[in-house]
Amino acid sequence: MSLLISSENKPQLLSVSQMTLESVNALFHYADILKPVASRKKVCRVLEGAVLANLFFEASTRTRISFGAAFCRLGGAVCDTTGFTTSSMAKGESIADTSRVISGYVDAIVLRHPEKGAVAEFARATNLPVINGGDGPGEHPSQALLDLYTIIKELSRSGKDINGSHIALVGDLKYGRTVHSLIKLLSLYKGLKFTLIAPKALQMPSYILDEVSNGDNIIEQFSVLDNNVRDIDIVYATRIQKERFSAGEDDNYSPELQLNKRFIDKYCKPSVIVMHPLPRDSRAEAFDLSTDLDNDPRLAIFRQTDNGIPIRMALFAVLMGVESNIQSSLRDTTWKTPHFMGPNDHFTLHE
Amino acid sequence: MSLLISSENKPQLLSVSQMTLESVNALFHYADILKPVASRKKVCRVLEGAVLANLFFEASTRTRISFGAAFCRLGGAVCDTTGFTTSSMAKGESIADTSRVISGYVDAIVLRHPEKGAVAEFARATNLPVINGGDGPGEHPSQALLDLYTIIKELSRSGKDINGSHIALVGDLKYGRTVHSLIKLLSLYKGLKFTLIAPKALQMPSYILDEVSNGDNIIEQFSVLDNNVRDIDIVYATRIQKERFSAGEDDNYSPELQLNKRFIDKYCKPSVIVMHPLPRDSRAEAFDLSTDLDNDPRLAIFRQTDNGIPIRMALFAVLMGVESNIQSSLRDTTWKTPHFMGPNDHFTLHE
Amino acid sequence: MSLLISSENKPQLLSVSQMTLESVNALFHYADILKPVASRKKVCRVLEGAVLANLFFEASTRTRISFGAAFCRLGGAVCDTTGFTTSSMAKGESIADTSRVISGYVDAIVLRHPEKGAVAEFARATNLPVINGGDGPGEHPSQALLDLYTIIKELSRSGKDINGSHIALVGDLKYGRTVHSLIKLLSLYKGLKFTLIAPKALQMPSYILDEVSNGDNIIEQFSVLDNNVRDIDIVYATRIQKERFSAGEDDNYSPELQLNKRFIDKYCKPSVIVMHPLPRDSRAEAFDLSTDLDNDPRLAIFRQTDNGIPIRMALFAVLMGVESNIQSSLRDTTWKTPHFMGPNDHFTLHE
Repeated sequence: MSLLISSENKPQLLSVSQMTLESVNALFHYADILKPVASRKKVCRVLEGAVLANLFFEASTRTRISFGAAFCRLGGAVCDTTGFTTSSMAKGESIADTSRVISGYVDAIVLRHPEKGAVAEFARATNLPVINGGDGPGEHPSQALLDLYTIIKELSRSGKDINGSHIALVGDLKYGRTVHSLIKLLSLYKGLKFTLIAPKALQMPSYILDEVSNGDNIIEQFSVLDNNVRDIDIVYATRIQKERFSAGEDDNYSPELQLNKRFIDKYCKPSVIVMHPLPRDSRAEAFDLSTDLDNDPRLAIFRQTDNGIPIRMALFAVLMGVESNIQSSLRDTTWKTPHFMGPNDHFTLHE
Repeated sequence: MSLLISSENKPQLLSVSQMTLESVNALFHYADILKPVASRKKVCRVLEGAVLANLFFEASTRTRISFGAAFCRLGGAVCDTTGFTTSSMAKGESIADTSRVISGYVDAIVLRHPEKGAVAEFARATNLPVINGGDGPGEHPSQALLDLYTIIKELSRSGKDINGSHIALVGDLKYGRTVHSLIKLLSLYKGLKFTLIAPKALQMPSYILDEVSNGDNIIEQFSVLDNNVRDIDIVYATRIQKERFSAGEDDNYSPELQLNKRFIDKYCKPSVIVMHPLPRDSRAEAFDLSTDLDNDPRLAIFRQTDNGIPIRMALFAVLMGVESNIQSSLRDTTWKTPHFMGPNDHFTLHE
Repeated sequence: MSLLISSENKPQLLSVSQMTLESVNALFHYADILKPVASRKKVCRVLEGAVLANLFFEASTRTRISFGAAFCRLGGAVCDTTGFTTSSMAKGESIADTSRVISGYVDAIVLRHPEKGAVAEFARATNLPVINGGDGPGEHPSQALLDLYTIIKELSRSGKDINGSHIALVGDLKYGRTVHSLIKLLSLYKGLKFTLIAPKALQMPSYILDEVSNGDNIIEQFSVLDNNVRDIDIVYATRIQKERFSAGEDDNYSPELQLNKRFIDKYCKPSVIVMHPLPRDSRAEAFDLSTDLDNDPRLAIFRQTDNGIPIRMALFAVLMGVESNIQSSLRDTTWKTPHFMGPNDHFTLHE
C-alpha cells in the first residue's frame, strides 16, 4: 500500500488535502535519504528503464525542469511536452482520452494544466502515478510540500521545531495558490501562530481560514508590515500581482508590503528566515521581495527551490513503490561538483 | 541484411509499400518479444548509449511521445524538436543539409514533416535509420503497422485468423492517410472482405482500390452504416473532418456514419472489434466515434494505441540491427506498475 | 584545477579569449579520445546520473541537438528548453535568479541567449559548469573550437601543419560572430596568413584585426574572390546576410563572392578545403556557398559539423572533471552503424 493514495485509491498526488502528518513525515524521510543525490554526492539509478511524461500544457520552465531533473536523478528518462497548441487536445480530444493514450506509453505522469480540476479529470482516466504540477488557480501540491520541508529544515538549523513556530505569509494571499496549499499543510502541526499580511483587498479567503483553524493555531491578519512580525520565525513572501488589481483594490495597496533588508533589519529578530516561491519580479518598479538580501544567510529562497529536487524525487519514489530500494542503490558521483552551487550560498544542500 | 530496407537499400521505413508478408511477420515477432517491456514487466537496455533525433516539424504530442518512449524503453536517449519555426530550415537550409547535419549527431531519426515527400528527401541524404513519422498527406507507416498488429491480436483473441476476415473502414476514406496505408498492408493477406463506408464525396480514391485489388479480396462500398456491417470482424472508424468539406460535400454527409453503442448493438455481431487511429473528437457536435462505448470490451482503441510501443520498439530494434540481442538483455522491472493502465481496461497488454 | 577556467576562476567556457594554446591542445586531445564515441564505435557512460540544462532562450535546432547529443553520449540526461516566452524571465525574473534556481536542479548548463553578455551574467550567478552556446552578437566559443579542430584535422590529412598555413575567410566578416571568434583562436598559432574577403561595407572590424595581429601573422583584405586565393589551404565561407544590408552597403555587394565549384576549380589549388559554419541558404537567390560542391571531397562542411560532437563531449568532460576517466570507460557499441553517415561522405569520422 503506497504512502500516497488519492481519494480514488490510486498512487497519485493531486491535492495537499491527501496528506496526513504520517505521510508527510514518511515522504520527508525519503527526501532526506535522497539529499545526497540532490546535492550530487551520490547517483541513484533505481528507476532505470522507466519513462516520465512531463506534460506542461501551460508553460513553466523551472517547474518542468525540476520534475524532469528529479526523475532523471532516479535513473529514469523523460518525455516532455510544452504548451497547449501542440496537443491533440486542440483537435477536440477529451482529457480522458489523452490520459489513457499517454498511459500506454509511460510509467508516470506530471501534468500542469491551465484549468482547475483538469488534472483530477486526467488522473481519473489512468491508473498510473500522476502528480498535479499545477492546475491553474487550483493546487500545486509539490510546491507546498517543498515549502513545508524547507520550513522544517530551516527551523531545525536554529534548533527550533515547527510545532509552536510563528510563520508570516505576506503579499497576495487572495489569488496565490501556493500560500493556500501551504497553510493547509502547516495546519497539520500544533501550536502555530500565523500572521497574514496582505492589502485589504487581497487577504486570505475566509474558506481557507476556516479549514486551517483547528482550534490549536492562532491566526492574525494585518494589512501592513510592521511590529507585527517582531517575533516571527519564517516570513514567506509572495509577489504582489499588481496587474490583477481592479481600480478599488489598487487604492488599498501599500509599498510598505515590500520585504527588503531595511525592513528585515528593523522589524525582525536576527534568526528570521525569508522565503518566496519564486519567480520574483526583480525589476525596480515591482514591489516584490528585494534583491538587497541576496547575500544574506537569512534569505532561504534558493535553499527552498533546491529542495524541489529531493522532494520531487521522494514523490516519484513513493508513488512508484521503489522508496525502500533507494538506500542500497546509491553509488558515488564520478564528476566534480561545486561545494556551493551559487556564489552567494551560505549552506550546502546537506546542511 | 536488415529486415527493413528502403528502395534505396537503407535501413529506413518510409512507406508501407516496403513491407512484405515476411518482413511484417518478422517485425511482429520482435514486437511480441518486446511486449513485456511495453507492459512494464521487463526492462531492456539494448540501445544504451544510442541517441534518437525525434524531429517533429509538425506538432504531434502523442506520436512524438510514443516514438520517444519506445526508444527510451530500449535504453536510448532522445533529442526532441517540435515545430517548424525553431528550425534552421526557416533560414533557407535545404532538407538535405538538415538531414546530413543531424546525422552527425545521432544514431536514428524519426521525422514528421507537413509536406508529402519531405521525409523521403530527408532520408536520401543520410545513411542512418530513418522512420517516416508522417509526411503530411503522404504516409505514416508505423501507424498502419500498429493498426495491423492490433487487428491480428484482436482477431486471435477470439480464435480468428486475419486471412479470410471481414474488415470495415468507416468515415473519411478520401483524405485519411491512415486508412490508405492500412488497406495496402491488409492486402498482403488472403481472402479478406473490405467494407468501405464513407459519404459519397469522401470515398476511398480509386488508385488505392486498384492497388489493393489483388484478385483475392472482396471490396464493397457504401455511404451509410447499415446491415452491410452485419458480419464484420473489425470496424475501423476515422474522424469525419467536417471542416474540410466543401459546400457540395457537406450535403452528402449523414450522421448515420457515427459509430456508437446503439449502432454496434443493433447491427454488429457480439465479437466485433471497434478501432480508431485517434485522436477522436469527443465534443458533442462532432460526428466521431462516440464515448458511450468507453467501458465496452469491444472497443480496442486504447489497446491499439498501446501497441504503438512494442511496434515502434521493434522498428527501432530491427532498423538498428539489435533485434537478436533483445531477449537475452531483458531484466525485471523494479518499480510497481498497475495491472490495468486505465480504469476501463478489460485486458492487459499481455492478453 | 580544470583545464578550462573562466576569468572568475570557474569551470565555465564563456569566450574564446579564455583559451591558451595549452588548453586548446589538451581539449583536442580529449576530443581525439572521444572520436570513437562520436563515430559510434564506442559507448561512454562516464556521466551516467548527471543532468544537463540545455537552455536555448533563442531557437537553434542544430546547436541544441549537438550539445544534447554530446551530453547523452557521455551517459548523461538532458533537460531542454526552447524559446523565451516560456521562461519565467518573461515575468520579470532576473538572469541571476534563473541561473541560481536552475543550478539547484542540474550538473551543467548550456545557455543560448539573444543578448550579448547575458550568458556571462548568468554564469556569474552560478558555480556550475556553464558553456556559452551563443549570446546574440557576442560569442559562440564551441563553434570556433570545432572550426579550429576541423582546420587542424583537414590540414593534417594532407600532411600540413596549422602553423604557417594560409586561411581565407569569405563573406560577411563584419557581423559574423563565428569568424570573429575563429580568427582570435587562430592567432594562437604562428606564421599564419589570413586572406579576408568581404564586401567593403562588411569587412572585419579593425578592433578584431588589432587583437589578432600578433606580429607573426600576415593579414590581407580584399573585396572580391580572385587570384588572391591561389595558394590558400582553407576557405571558410559565411552567409552574406543580404537582409541586413543598408542602402549603401548593398551597392558594394558582388555576386563574385559566392563560393562554387567553378570558382574553386578555377582559382584554388587542388588540396584546398572548403568550410562553412552552417546553416547555409541553399535557395537559388541566396549568394551562399553553392550546393554544386556537395559531392566534392574538398567540401568539409559536414566533417566540420560532425566535429561538434567530439568537441562538445570534450568540453563537458573537461568542465566536469571526468576527462581522465573516459578512456577506461569505453565499451563497444552494440547496434549497427553505417560506415559513412551520408551518401556523399568521402571520409569517416575516424579519418
